[in-house]
Amino acid sequence: MTKPILYHSPVCPFCQRIDILLALKGRQQDVDVHTLDLAVPRPDWLLQKTRGTPALPVLETADGHIVKESLVILQYLEDIFPDRPVARRDPWQRAVENMLTRMDVDFFSQGYAWLMNQDPARRDTMREGMLKQYAQLNDFLLAHAPGGPFLFEEFGWAETVFTPFFQRFWFLEYYEDFRLPDDARYDRVRQWVEACVTHPAAQQVSRELVIKFYYDYAKGCGNGVLPPGRRKSSLALEPDWRARPMPPQDKYCHSATDADLGL
Amino acid sequence: MTKPILYHSPVCPFCQRIDILLALKGRQQDVDVHTLDLAVPRPDWLLQKTRGTPALPVLETADGHIVKESLVILQYLEDIFPDRPVARRDPWQRAVENMLTRMDVDFFSQGYAWLMNQDPARRDTMREGMLKQYAQLNDFLLAHAPGGPFLFEEFGWAETVFTPFFQRFWFLEYYEDFRLPDDARYDRVRQWVEACVTHPAAQQVSRELVIKFYYDYAKGCGNGVLPPGRRKSSLALEPDWRARPMPPQDKYCHSATDADLGL
Repeated sequence: MTKPILYHSPVCPFCQRIDILLALKGRQQDVDVHTLDLAVPRPDWLLQKTRGTPALPVLETADGHIVKESLVILQYLEDIFPDRPVARRDPWQRAVENMLTRMDVDFFSQGYAWLMNQDPARRDTMREGMLKQYAQLNDFLLAHAPGGPFLFEEFGWAETVFTPFFQRFWFLEYYEDFRLPDDARYDRVRQWVEACVTHPAAQQVSRELVIKFYYDYAKGCGNGVLPPGRRKSSLALEPDWRARPMPPQDKYCHSATDADLGL
Repeated sequence: MTKPILYHSPVCPFCQRIDILLALKGRQQDVDVHTLDLAVPRPDWLLQKTRGTPALPVLETADGHIVKESLVILQYLEDIFPDRPVARRDPWQRAVENMLTRMDVDFFSQGYAWLMNQDPARRDTMREGMLKQYAQLNDFLLAHAPGGPFLFEEFGWAETVFTPFFQRFWFLEYYEDFRLPDDARYDRVRQWVEACVTHPAAQQVSRELVIKFYYDYAKGCGNGVLPPGRRKSSLALEPDWRARPMPPQDKYCHSATDADLGL
C-alpha cells in the first residue's frame, strides 16, 4: 500500500513536530521519510510539488496531494491515524491547547531573533524579551494546569508543538549563556520544559546537533545563507555533525572558518 | 439553561467570524452577546476574565471558562454545536481549508498596513503588496477549487475566516481607490470575494459602517488611539454610525474634525 511521504530535515523544528506526533501514535512505519539537506536550495521537483514553497515539512498524501505547514500536517495525520489521539477531544480542553498553541509564533520568533542578533548592545533587550515569553507560558500553565508537568495528563498536542523549540533553544544556552533564572516566576514553565525535552517521543535531536547545525544562525545567517568568507553552511548534512568539533561559543567577536567547523 | 456569552464588537472582523459561524449553524439564539465600545478601554471586569488580554472576541463558556482568539472560539463552537458542520470532515479537505486559513495573517496585515500608511510615496508599494496577496489566494483557489465560487460546495470554514476582511477592505476602495484590476490573474479570487461578501450569513456589516468606523485607521490611528486634535474616536458606537456623514476620502492631505465626522 502507498504510504504518505514526509519531506523532512532533521534540523528543522517544524519537521520534528511531525516526528513527535508519529512517535506518540506509534506510526513511524506508516510514513516514508525523504530527508533534505537545508544547505542546498530545494530541488525543482519538490518546488513543483509545493507550487514554489521552499518551507519544510511537506507531506505528500497516499493520493498524491500536497499538505504544507506543520500544524496542518499534524491535524491531517491526527485525522487519518485516529488511534491514540494526541489532540484532546473535549471541546474546552481542545480550546485550551489551541490557545497555548497559538502562543508558538511569538515564542519561537523571539528565540530565533535573539540567536541571530549580531549587536552586543541588544543582548539585554533580547534576554528580557525571551524571559517575557517564558513568563507568559508560565502564567498560562498556572491558570490551566497548575499541577503539571504537562498541560493535561500526558504529553499531547501543545507539547508536540513546543518541544522542538525548547530543544532548539539549547542554542541560546550555548551562544548566549541563557538559562531560565532560578525564580518562582518561571517554576511552572521550567517544569514543563524539562518534562517535554526528556520525553521518550521527543528524542530526535540532541544539544550537540542543535549547537553544531545552528552556528550560522548564531552568526546572523539563516536558511543556508553563508556568513562572509565561508563556503559551506553549518546546516549541511555532510560531513556528519557527530564528526565535527563544537563551534566557538563567542558569536559576537569571533567568526569560525569552514575548517574550524569541520565542514 | 446558561448560554455562552460572546464579548464582541460590530466593528471587529475577528468578532464577525463568530457571528458568521453562528449564522451558518442557525445558533445565534444559543449565545448571549455583550457588545463593547472599542472607543473606550476594555473594562476591568473583562480584563480580569481574560487575564489582561484586551483583544476581542472573547467567549465565556456556559461553565464560566474563557476562550480567546477567534479561530479557537470558532473551533470550540464547531465542537459544541456539531450540527450543520462548517469545517470539513474529510482529512484532506480539512487540510485544504486549514492551508488556506493560514494565509489569513499576511492577507489582513497587508490591508491594514496599507489603510494605516500615511506616506503617499509608499502607496504604490502597498498596492503591489495587496495585489500579491490576492494573487496568492487566486493561485490557491485555482489549484484546489478551479470551478468555484467557494472552496468547496458551500460557504464554509475558509469563507468564515476571510469574509470579514474582504468586507473590511471596502475601506481600501474608499480611502485608497483600490479595486482588483480587471485581469485574469485575479478572476478566481474576484469570484470568491463576490460570492463571500454577498452570502446571506455574512451580512453583519455594510460598506458605510466600515468606512465610517475606520476613518481613524485611515489616519494611521488604530485601536481607539485618537488622531491629533480629535477628542472622540471614529470607533465610537455613539452617535450611531448611520447618523454620521461620510468621512472625507482624502486621507493624505486632509484631517477631519470630530464635528466633520458627526462624532
